[in-house]
Amino acid sequence: MSQIKTIALIGSGRVAVHLGSVLQSKGFDIVGVYGRDENEAEQLAQKLKTKRIMRLSATLNADLIILAVSDDAVGEVVRQLSPQSKGLVVHTSGSVSMTIIPSYLRRGVLYPLQTFSRDKKIVWENVPFCLEAETDADVNALGAVAERISRKVYLLSSQQRKALHLAAVFANNFANLMFEFSEELLAKAEIDRTILHPLILETANKVLMQPAAESQTGPARRGDLETIRTQQQLLGERNALREVYDLLTREIYNRSNHEHQL
Amino acid sequence: MSQIKTIALIGSGRVAVHLGSVLQSKGFDIVGVYGRDENEAEQLAQKLKTKRIMRLSATLNADLIILAVSDDAVGEVVRQLSPQSKGLVVHTSGSVSMTIIPSYLRRGVLYPLQTFSRDKKIVWENVPFCLEAETDADVNALGAVAERISRKVYLLSSQQRKALHLAAVFANNFANLMFEFSEELLAKAEIDRTILHPLILETANKVLMQPAAESQTGPARRGDLETIRTQQQLLGERNALREVYDLLTREIYNRSNHEHQL
Repeated sequence: MSQIKTIALIGSGRVAVHLGSVLQSKGFDIVGVYGRDENEAEQLAQKLKTKRIMRLSATLNADLIILAVSDDAVGEVVRQLSPQSKGLVVHTSGSVSMTIIPSYLRRGVLYPLQTFSRDKKIVWENVPFCLEAETDADVNALGAVAERISRKVYLLSSQQRKALHLAAVFANNFANLMFEFSEELLAKAEIDRTILHPLILETANKVLMQPAAESQTGPARRGDLETIRTQQQLLGERNALREVYDLLTREIYNRSNHEHQL
Repeated sequence: MSQIKTIALIGSGRVAVHLGSVLQSKGFDIVGVYGRDENEAEQLAQKLKTKRIMRLSATLNADLIILAVSDDAVGEVVRQLSPQSKGLVVHTSGSVSMTIIPSYLRRGVLYPLQTFSRDKKIVWENVPFCLEAETDADVNALGAVAERISRKVYLLSSQQRKALHLAAVFANNFANLMFEFSEELLAKAEIDRTILHPLILETANKVLMQPAAESQTGPARRGDLETIRTQQQLLGERNALREVYDLLTREIYNRSNHEHQL
């Protein structure tokens, strides 16, 4: 296939709203929007000044059909698409294989690696896009779309994308949980949570300069067992924070070339 | 006491080097440097164009005596200080009580909340300083020193400082471990680690905008058990990453108002 010009959007949630808007702003023609939630779909269609697609099974006349639906809905939605649709069908999920899309459709993946807040503006040129498709022609066509939006376009297999999605759970969800724990400790001690903001920014910025393993500091890294004991006492017994503290402290300690293992 | 003008520096490691330099640049008179490691001490004395203090037990003629030594050395070092020294004696540790300093000395704490890399320049005006002292006069004098360096000065009790230090272990050391895990997963899948940098920055920046609990996303937050199962399979059985994944996933899941607990 040649260049992608027209796009049908399946989904009306956060990803669909953000992605639809930026694609339109880059000159793509959004020919229609489908959403299970009729109000949301109508709102998005109006926002993009396009028409609503009323049935999922309609034959879609678009070069690219983007499924911006939740991970667990992809499988159900693709099975309803008309085999008559000639466009390239891509989903936007990190954790779902490309092959969930039936082979009678031209298939691929367009996965933007970002957390989408409802209100926060997205700096699209910095959002990594991960692509996958079955033919070189489709990879190229999809790549041309992604490169119109972002400076960071990666070609990844389904297996690689799953590893990336898992890595993102650690780097985003789990790191955020650590920030949540720290805010709880501060609240309990009646300390303003903003006191930790410079350290949190510094922690993130350091990872951009060098591998995280080289940035590690703190009592477990130093092998400072006295501070570790003091902090365990402060946390108390049998609670989630203590359990997390013990596990992660042991992990850092055991990676740090101390004489014995914890 | 009135204004602090002269400072003696005990310690010659990273914190001593950085703190000594900024204090001197702000007009304080560094009257001497002591270090157990003679080479390091000599280097720092030359850098600060001051003399070395040869014995810890010498009577120190300075308004402020800063103990910039490791957490587990503070106790041993302060006991060697001469009771004749009239200056305010402060340590710089997050996890050590003020009262580790004997009561025959005027005592306090000056704790800069930051990770000190050897080479990276520190933007001091953003580094939170946590103060403690026994009299209002000493608090004020110490506060005047800290405010010369930083825009962020906090008065915290020893108990609060310990809670803060523990919170910093979560926000810095443990968050960094999450970044380390994610880099390992990427390396194994042969994906460039820089792909996650925009997400890591976004994760940190979000915490500056709103409480971390409100930023949480991902499979555990959504209650997406299928993705969780897929990711557990990807990690395999009985390894550190899997153990961390299960514990943190359960924790996020159970905080997320799903119908059942994990």
